[in-house]
Amino acid sequence: METPSSWRDRLYVIVFQTDTVAGRRFDTILLLIILASLVVVVLDSIDEVHQHYANLLAIIEWGFTAVFLIEYLVRLYCSPKPLRYAFSFYGLVDLLAILPGIIAIYYSDAQFLMMIRVIRMLRIFRVLKLAPYLKQAHYLLAALQGSKQKIIVFLLSVSTLVTVFGTLMYVIEGPEHGYTSIPKGIYWAIVTLTTVGYGDIVPKTPLGQVLSSLVMITGYSIIAVPTGIFTAELANAMRGEQLKHDCPTCRKSSHEHGAAFCSRCGNVLFKKVE
Amino acid sequence: METPSSWRDRLYVIVFQTDTVAGRRFDTILLLIILASLVVVVLDSIDEVHQHYANLLAIIEWGFTAVFLIEYLVRLYCSPKPLRYAFSFYGLVDLLAILPGIIAIYYSDAQFLMMIRVIRMLRIFRVLKLAPYLKQAHYLLAALQGSKQKIIVFLLSVSTLVTVFGTLMYVIEGPEHGYTSIPKGIYWAIVTLTTVGYGDIVPKTPLGQVLSSLVMITGYSIIAVPTGIFTAELANAMRGEQLKHDCPTCRKSSHEHGAAFCSRCGNVLFKKVE
Amino acid sequence: METPSSWRDRLYVIVFQTDTVAGRRFDTILLLIILASLVVVVLDSIDEVHQHYANLLAIIEWGFTAVFLIEYLVRLYCSPKPLRYAFSFYGLVDLLAILPGIIAIYYSDAQFLMMIRVIRMLRIFRVLKLAPYLKQAHYLLAALQGSKQKIIVFLLSVSTLVTVFGTLMYVIEGPEHGYTSIPKGIYWAIVTLTTVGYGDIVPKTPLGQVLSSLVMITGYSIIAVPTGIFTAELANAMRGEQLKHDCPTCRKSSHEHGAAFCSRCGNVLFKKVE
Amino acid sequence: METPSSWRDRLYVIVFQTDTVAGRRFDTILLLIILASLVVVVLDSIDEVHQHYANLLAIIEWGFTAVFLIEYLVRLYCSPKPLRYAFSFYGLVDLLAILPGIIAIYYSDAQFLMMIRVIRMLRIFRVLKLAPYLKQAHYLLAALQGSKQKIIVFLLSVSTLVTVFGTLMYVIEGPEHGYTSIPKGIYWAIVTLTTVGYGDIVPKTPLGQVLSSLVMITGYSIIAVPTGIFTAELANAMRGEQLKHDCPTCRKSSHEHGAAFCSRCGNVLFKKVE
Repeated sequence: METPSSWRDRLYVIVFQTDTVAGRRFDTILLLIILASLVVVVLDSIDEVHQHYANLLAIIEWGFTAVFLIEYLVRLYCSPKPLRYAFSFYGLVDLLAILPGIIAIYYSDAQFLMMIRVIRMLRIFRVLKLAPYLKQAHYLLAALQGSKQKIIVFLLSVSTLVTVFGTLMYVIEGPEHGYTSIPKGIYWAIVTLTTVGYGDIVPKTPLGQVLSSLVMITGYSIIAVPTGIFTAELANAMRGEQLKHDCPTCRKSSHEHGAAFCSRCGNVLFKKVE
Repeated sequence: METPSSWRDRLYVIVFQTDTVAGRRFDTILLLIILASLVVVVLDSIDEVHQHYANLLAIIEWGFTAVFLIEYLVRLYCSPKPLRYAFSFYGLVDLLAILPGIIAIYYSDAQFLMMIRVIRMLRIFRVLKLAPYLKQAHYLLAALQGSKQKIIVFLLSVSTLVTVFGTLMYVIEGPEHGYTSIPKGIYWAIVTLTTVGYGDIVPKTPLGQVLSSLVMITGYSIIAVPTGIFTAELANAMRGEQLKHDCPTCRKSSHEHGAAFCSRCGNVLFKKVE
Repeated sequence: METPSSWRDRLYVIVFQTDTVAGRRFDTILLLIILASLVVVVLDSIDEVHQHYANLLAIIEWGFTAVFLIEYLVRLYCSPKPLRYAFSFYGLVDLLAILPGIIAIYYSDAQFLMMIRVIRMLRIFRVLKLAPYLKQAHYLLAALQGSKQKIIVFLLSVSTLVTVFGTLMYVIEGPEHGYTSIPKGIYWAIVTLTTVGYGDIVPKTPLGQVLSSLVMITGYSIIAVPTGIFTAELANAMRGEQLKHDCPTCRKSSHEHGAAFCSRCGNVLFKKVE
Repeated sequence: METPSSWRDRLYVIVFQTDTVAGRRFDTILLLIILASLVVVVLDSIDEVHQHYANLLAIIEWGFTAVFLIEYLVRLYCSPKPLRYAFSFYGLVDLLAILPGIIAIYYSDAQFLMMIRVIRMLRIFRVLKLAPYLKQAHYLLAALQGSKQKIIVFLLSVSTLVTVFGTLMYVIEGPEHGYTSIPKGIYWAIVTLTTVGYGDIVPKTPLGQVLSSLVMITGYSIIAVPTGIFTAELANAMRGEQLKHDCPTCRKSSHEHGAAFCSRCGNVLFKKVE
């Protein structure tokens, strides 16, 4: 048997890290438990299931709470800085995961508890980092990063559009056709511009139908904008990655895929075979 | 204290320009006031709010009118060519911003006033130029500029499609299924082609359903066209910007990113290190 | 005055061609008349307008018929091969444009006539060739041409998908939830897959909702396919056009934009300045 | 007459392969029969048709079953390893094609039989390999292959989003507005995020409408992600294919279209003409 300190260190590696086999196994098991607890919440929300298996589900829920409580205590125990962990984002999420069971003893508003129980799902993101897929997500994130500002410009324009169109429709159609206020008009404009089209509020007057046709065609056309932004950035991210080699002359660090010469100074990037 | 003329000049810089700290601060405050006035209009349109706080909102509205009136007078005062300003686009929008309050004294059709009050929102565009984001919007505008003619061709084709399909549906389905006129048929065709799909008018006859399936698949497929146009243009705009360097031989001014040689004459773009 | 033959030739140039000023003016006027006749049909389909202005619209319609009749006779007269013109696609469309008026004398089914009157709209395409925009449409057509086969593969897959999903939903949901037959199920699958979502037929059973969720996510994801195809082709078409220059060594005729060397044989494309 | 073995071999080539004229003809005929049997199923599902032509359709169905039975026996006979064929995927599908007719003798649940009869459609994929279009599908499959992992990351994120949003809406709107359980909320979230928007369940509370506006704009924006992924991959696949030539120095096998030099070692890819 090892010294307690070393034992804590080993536990720390298993619980907090994902580089070792044991660490990855721990994360996989935790992922399955979180998913199972999620399935229980989902089942519990179905009326027929709730009426027949309420007790069973409550017991299972107690089990999950116990597991998460133990996990939380282990994390507190083996963390080198327990307080910093306790107040970190994931520390609070981990605490939230055990709260519903504890709150349920004194207070039993199903709705309110359910919300907290679903927040547990956020823990999936902590565990998912084990997935090799997240390495693949690198390109997507790089592309999103690169297009962030353009996307904000786009969202600002969309916001202005839906406000103007929503108000116009409120004035044109009026409360008698369901456009009871400007926020409702904006809601309609978002439903229409994004081409969702619930049909709960629809234009009835000819002028309103002309205007909403305009909104639809706008929405149909400007979807090209985020798509174009993201595609161009992603193509860049995918191309950019393929050749990271310092130019021996001017030190420019990234070059286009297939570049024979540095794009800045025109000197050869690779020594030729004489 | 300085001469009046210099005082007016300074005011002009603050009120009309955005290069100085004071100018940017002025624009930020104006932006907040415009947004606040917009929030008031939106709140006023909600029935419950209107019934309880009508007086309060009216007073706040009076305040905004006063602020915009003062701003308008200041702009008139410090503008080097007041008349030219007064009849410029933004001059008229600025005037519109104070009109609702003045009209409301003699005349009180809420709907009509609300429309004018929302037009105030157009003033946001004047102010938004301070945002550093608009520099990012450069690419988007360049791409839109480049694809303008192609987009017009696309919109013309879409217009023809919806007219033909709308008429066909009017003939096939007829008034008894909600297609009471050709414009209504065109409205339906737009709702369907843009994949909005309200469901307020739907095909009932088998032939109508076959035709509308055709419209849907068309709409689903041709959304690729604006997207493709914009993506290709945006990729061009983003690539094109990276290498603006005159070819020393033929003076071609823009070259592909990563180009070692001029694409027109084949001579080296950058002097090599011997 | 010139010889009749030369007079006919001149008329032919004006009526059939678009290279001369007179020819373009003729086409513009014809375009306006066609659009006006279209507006009359559209107005006529609106019940209120029809009840009040039926006689007026009928007279205007007679005028259009007269104009199109004269145009048709002129075309027949000045065409070098009248019979070949009469049986060509546009010749038949031109004939269709005058038919409604003639049929209306003996027979008066409004619906049937309206259909023919709208087919007149096809004549717009004959006239539109004058638009300089059609030159811009070149890229779009090139891209569509290039992606034709891929689009067919895509449409075949979509057809298979909607047939399978439509049948499954017919079996799962059954006639009591609106899925009265397999064609209806296919119609639902198309409405869902294309993200139109009318909501006239919706899944009611849990299994049906799971399946339709699958259809929706499929539809949401595979829209990337036509978009990707078209974007890639359009980018190719736009890039490809910029460098059409025979390689002096291997005669390969088209090269990538910015290519310094022939991509096939590696020899320089342009003579260098020594 | 040839030896039985050679006769079986020839039959094998016709029935299982598509390289010969006879093999392609066999596949075309089989494709038509499958499509015809599908049309019969579809027609049979329409109530009016079923009531009038039930007997006729049943006889035709018997004919198809006979044809498929003969085909299955021929395949078993000429296959070099009959058992391996019988238990292969396509072998089971072929068996399924004749099952409905046999089951129908003892048991006659129309719904259940119809499901099996439609599974016959899977046989189309076996036959479709004859289409020259499938060669064109190569790019599409290559692009899908390349983007598979990214698409999975995307679908995982979408799943998380719809679960969280679905639960939130269940808590906010509650059963009285149609959100009777979390799965129903998730179903709503999918309907909204994919911009399908049936309108069978819609938010009624202001908070719910704000949240669903968020979902819509999210769905409207992130459609850019699969599109961007696929477009970038497809552009890669189309570009990559154009130059497959081993670099004579470093043996790198694929090069960018238009590359004059190897992108890895910088040596010329093609021997120059001196």
